[in-house]
Amino acid sequence: MICDNLTISKDGRHLLFAGQDTVELAKKYGTPVYLLDEDKIREKCRKYKRAFQKHFGPESVPLYASKANSFKRIYKIMSEEDMGIDVVSSGEIYTALAAGYDLSKAYFHSNNKTDSDIAYAMEKGIGYFVCDNEEELMAIQNEANRREIKQKILLRLTPGIDPHTFEAISTGKVDSKFGIPVETGQAKEITQKALSLHNIDLRGFHCHIGSQVFAEDVFERGARVMLEFIAQMKADLGYEAYELDLGGGYGVRYTENDPYLDIDKKVSEVAKAAKDSCKRLGIKLPVIHMEPGRSIVADAGMVLYTVGSIKKIPGYKNYVSIDGGMSDSPRYALYKASYTCLAANKMDENCNFTASVVGRLCESGDIIQENVKLPSSIQRGDIIALCTAGAYHYSMASNYNRLPKPATIILRNGNENYIAIKGETLDDIIRNDL
Amino acid sequence: MICDNLTISKDGRHLLFAGQDTVELAKKYGTPVYLLDEDKIREKCRKYKRAFQKHFGPESVPLYASKANSFKRIYKIMSEEDMGIDVVSSGEIYTALAAGYDLSKAYFHSNNKTDSDIAYAMEKGIGYFVCDNEEELMAIQNEANRREIKQKILLRLTPGIDPHTFEAISTGKVDSKFGIPVETGQAKEITQKALSLHNIDLRGFHCHIGSQVFAEDVFERGARVMLEFIAQMKADLGYEAYELDLGGGYGVRYTENDPYLDIDKKVSEVAKAAKDSCKRLGIKLPVIHMEPGRSIVADAGMVLYTVGSIKKIPGYKNYVSIDGGMSDSPRYALYKASYTCLAANKMDENCNFTASVVGRLCESGDIIQENVKLPSSIQRGDIIALCTAGAYHYSMASNYNRLPKPATIILRNGNENYIAIKGETLDDIIRNDL
Repeated sequence: MICDNLTISKDGRHLLFAGQDTVELAKKYGTPVYLLDEDKIREKCRKYKRAFQKHFGPESVPLYASKANSFKRIYKIMSEEDMGIDVVSSGEIYTALAAGYDLSKAYFHSNNKTDSDIAYAMEKGIGYFVCDNEEELMAIQNEANRREIKQKILLRLTPGIDPHTFEAISTGKVDSKFGIPVETGQAKEITQKALSLHNIDLRGFHCHIGSQVFAEDVFERGARVMLEFIAQMKADLGYEAYELDLGGGYGVRYTENDPYLDIDKKVSEVAKAAKDSCKRLGIKLPVIHMEPGRSIVADAGMVLYTVGSIKKIPGYKNYVSIDGGMSDSPRYALYKASYTCLAANKMDENCNFTASVVGRLCESGDIIQENVKLPSSIQRGDIIALCTAGAYHYSMASNYNRLPKPATIILRNGNENYIAIKGETLDDIIRNDL
Repeated sequence: MICDNLTISKDGRHLLFAGQDTVELAKKYGTPVYLLDEDKIREKCRKYKRAFQKHFGPESVPLYASKANSFKRIYKIMSEEDMGIDVVSSGEIYTALAAGYDLSKAYFHSNNKTDSDIAYAMEKGIGYFVCDNEEELMAIQNEANRREIKQKILLRLTPGIDPHTFEAISTGKVDSKFGIPVETGQAKEITQKALSLHNIDLRGFHCHIGSQVFAEDVFERGARVMLEFIAQMKADLGYEAYELDLGGGYGVRYTENDPYLDIDKKVSEVAKAAKDSCKRLGIKLPVIHMEPGRSIVADAGMVLYTVGSIKKIPGYKNYVSIDGGMSDSPRYALYKASYTCLAANKMDENCNFTASVVGRLCESGDIIQENVKLPSSIQRGDIIALCTAGAYHYSMASNYNRLPKPATIILRNGNENYIAIKGETLDDIIRNDL
């Protein structure tokens, strides 16, 4: 099994998730349905917090990258776990506030914050803007000036590192829609500019190198480039950054081919590289943040589907259709992302039937996964579990084909389950139609 | 200009859409916002209807493939234009019914209709099921039997034709998640089965070869294969199909490189091929349907955005960020789809600045279009029009990054505009969060 919250019932037949019978959950809540393992989410938060405090120091806080899965209940959990958050829109801020999250611990991202986003976030007391560009810097200055406050910001820089992950999720290269490049000298210019602005409190810098990163030294290289820049700014401008946010991106296990990631070990390696760099450069270690999102919620999640039809095309291939698809799980359609699919009610059977698991939407690209090994008895009514689906499923869900978004059910304590996000109704679908 | 509903204001500066000033519309309704040209939609419906009746005969009806853009008002328009519709889910049926659409003219698609979809559609008096597979055929038979009715169906077949369009939108090949292959003999088997079922009224066959099709003879080849199958069934089983639905797929002009498509001419060519085949095969010409979706609404649509920042990375490239992105316009992220972007408030300026137009979402893949030619004066606050955005934008929209879905504004009669779908509020976003 790819994660320790996946087990099998005593009779060997049913898949358990977070200790609970997925076949029973499918019966109770219907399919498609998103499941989230609250205990796993909290375990991951604690692992990150412990590792950060141990290796980076007591002020260092992991920020949950909430775009991975953003809804009221998760901000409550982050609040209870004393986690920082990274938000990317007024919508995420609104959701966090509705959950009672203390916004002073929030970092506001996005390569394009509108004037109204900026005014709204400041009105609500956002902790930090992670400022992406010069237009935004001036817009923040103007709004802070109007309000007669000094606004904390980080400047988002691109350190010029290619993490060799999939193109759509790599963002630390010089050529990126995000941030200001170090290499071209533009990062220094905007730093000078930020320091010159009366209502801006430049707290330091941010970079984000990529997502789903497994490569050995990506964050270490990122930290080195950023710390060299900090040292350079100290030498050139007499400004020493207080905080360095290294962004997100640790990988998770979608399939058996993905490695296990030891959070404590990875963080300790980044800390060692950062401390070595600081020593060499003669600067203090800044307060370090990172932004785990996927690695906190992905393997805490699962989607359950019901099989509708089996299509065997002799000489070509086999298709198993399920009752959801790219509307609830768009990552295969977007990135050909790998996943593990299990026949949740037939875990005792040999998987000797190879099929493409496809969605119900009227679009050929609506595929969940190719070359899935399933029991040859698979049939209409069987339950398919799509694993590692806690990140970028609900958050990216659409109503394509006018399909309602499935409910999100949270599982905890081995036997409790509750609705965290109600499934949409058909009335929800037409609510805004006039 | 790529479509005749795009013009320029008298002073040469502003882009007009359907005769209305897009800069004024952006001011009135805010951005991002979807615009739809009702007159163009009606014009296309009438063109299809006329061509069908002229070339295929009086009973032949074009079916609007409503997954392209499904909301209440469009079903009202289809009702007024006496168009058939193709629906793909209970959600589309619910929306059509809410608009007062006569469901007896609806064809229900999808490669996986659930038992509850089938019961719901039958309860509401759906015209036809376009039956995709054997499990579904039996489920329809069972439900029709329970209700003591005879249910009209078409069987969806795959004629084995590759239209050479983009893989994700080509569906007529033998290897497809949709339908039953002719080549393997499975189509004949399911025809026999359908004919043997007491509560099934097999009206004929359906195929869908692909979307965004420009190639000369794709539909002609599709018609030939399907008519040969019909002749074969007449010879083998004594069954002559009454209806043949050739599916959707005519291409639209996303850029100046895409050809113009003469609907009347294309339909006449398909009709000629079909009539020739029938003559050769000694069968009657069935009632022919086709399912235009994109080609009815795509160039009737536009998205307006406001520019947030301009990023010039010397030696690399330039980025123009707008206030929407893959959440409202996911086709570039999904298919690297080509589009035309225009600086709507600077139509009189030379476009000598090349940039990637990118969205505001925290994802590198959130790109609207690469290599866009824009005026070099482009700046925060300018309006960007994304053209040919009436199909597969609103219908595929998500709330990724917790962004509310934009409003859809309908333009008509040169100066009227009204809200057809209200823009989502932040309250809408958290409505189902518990």
